[in-house]
Amino acid sequence: MRLEHIGIAVANLEDSENLLERLIGREPYKRETVAEQSVTTSFFTGGGAEAKLELVAPENQAGPIQKFLEKRGPGIHHLAFEVDDIAAEMRRLREDGFELLQELPSEGADNKLVCFLHPRSTNGVLVEICQTRRE
Amino acid sequence: MRLEHIGIAVANLEDSENLLERLIGREPYKRETVAEQSVTTSFFTGGGAEAKLELVAPENQAGPIQKFLEKRGPGIHHLAFEVDDIAAEMRRLREDGFELLQELPSEGADNKLVCFLHPRSTNGVLVEICQTRRE
Repeated sequence: MRLEHIGIAVANLEDSENLLERLIGREPYKRETVAEQSVTTSFFTGGGAEAKLELVAPENQAGPIQKFLEKRGPGIHHLAFEVDDIAAEMRRLREDGFELLQELPSEGADNKLVCFLHPRSTNGVLVEICQTRRE
Repeated sequence: MRLEHIGIAVANLEDSENLLERLIGREPYKRETVAEQSVTTSFFTGGGAEAKLELVAPENQAGPIQKFLEKRGPGIHHLAFEVDDIAAEMRRLREDGFELLQELPSEGADNKLVCFLHPRSTNGVLVEICQTRRE
């Protein structure tokens, strides 16, 4: 089984296309209505990488994952996008009106520097941007 | 920005690793604790495909996306996995105790046959399996 796509529920397709374009820097490559499901869909490429799946379990009673589980139960938590220069991307996104959850990048799994964006500025999706640490 | 991974919040790492192994047929390739976030993580490959992003907006007041928006607001809705033979996979998953939301595949976007699995059998994740229609 190959991960094929991630579906994101949105109220207004055009507004959300514009938002995702501003976030990831790509336009949708097609729109399609699926009458049987009463939906209209819009597709974006992933940007060339094979996406991994990361299970995230709390180590103790502290931390954001424990809080998420208590509030919403288990489930999809975030989408992560890799960038080449996290400091430059954080500046760009802040200037474009995205709400960053941190002033400086923090250490993430997989030898990465990470920064999270508040879901209220990203269509309800908790977005992580990450950059591989340079040795 | 390249889609790098999807993070899934889980209460118990080992149970969820076993569940995901049964679902996608691959073992995790590494585990890692991130002390700063108070979490332990486990990584699976995506299976070789570049994952797309699909925005899904309601066409009218009917349909499951409209219900999702009313209940939870906008946000990540489902993960889709491509399979070669959807009928065989539906049989395999049903026999393994996964709860399928439909008896027969239905028509999805992107020239695909699709079947959804109930999130209560998949760690809170709405899972779609899909197969490209043969002409």
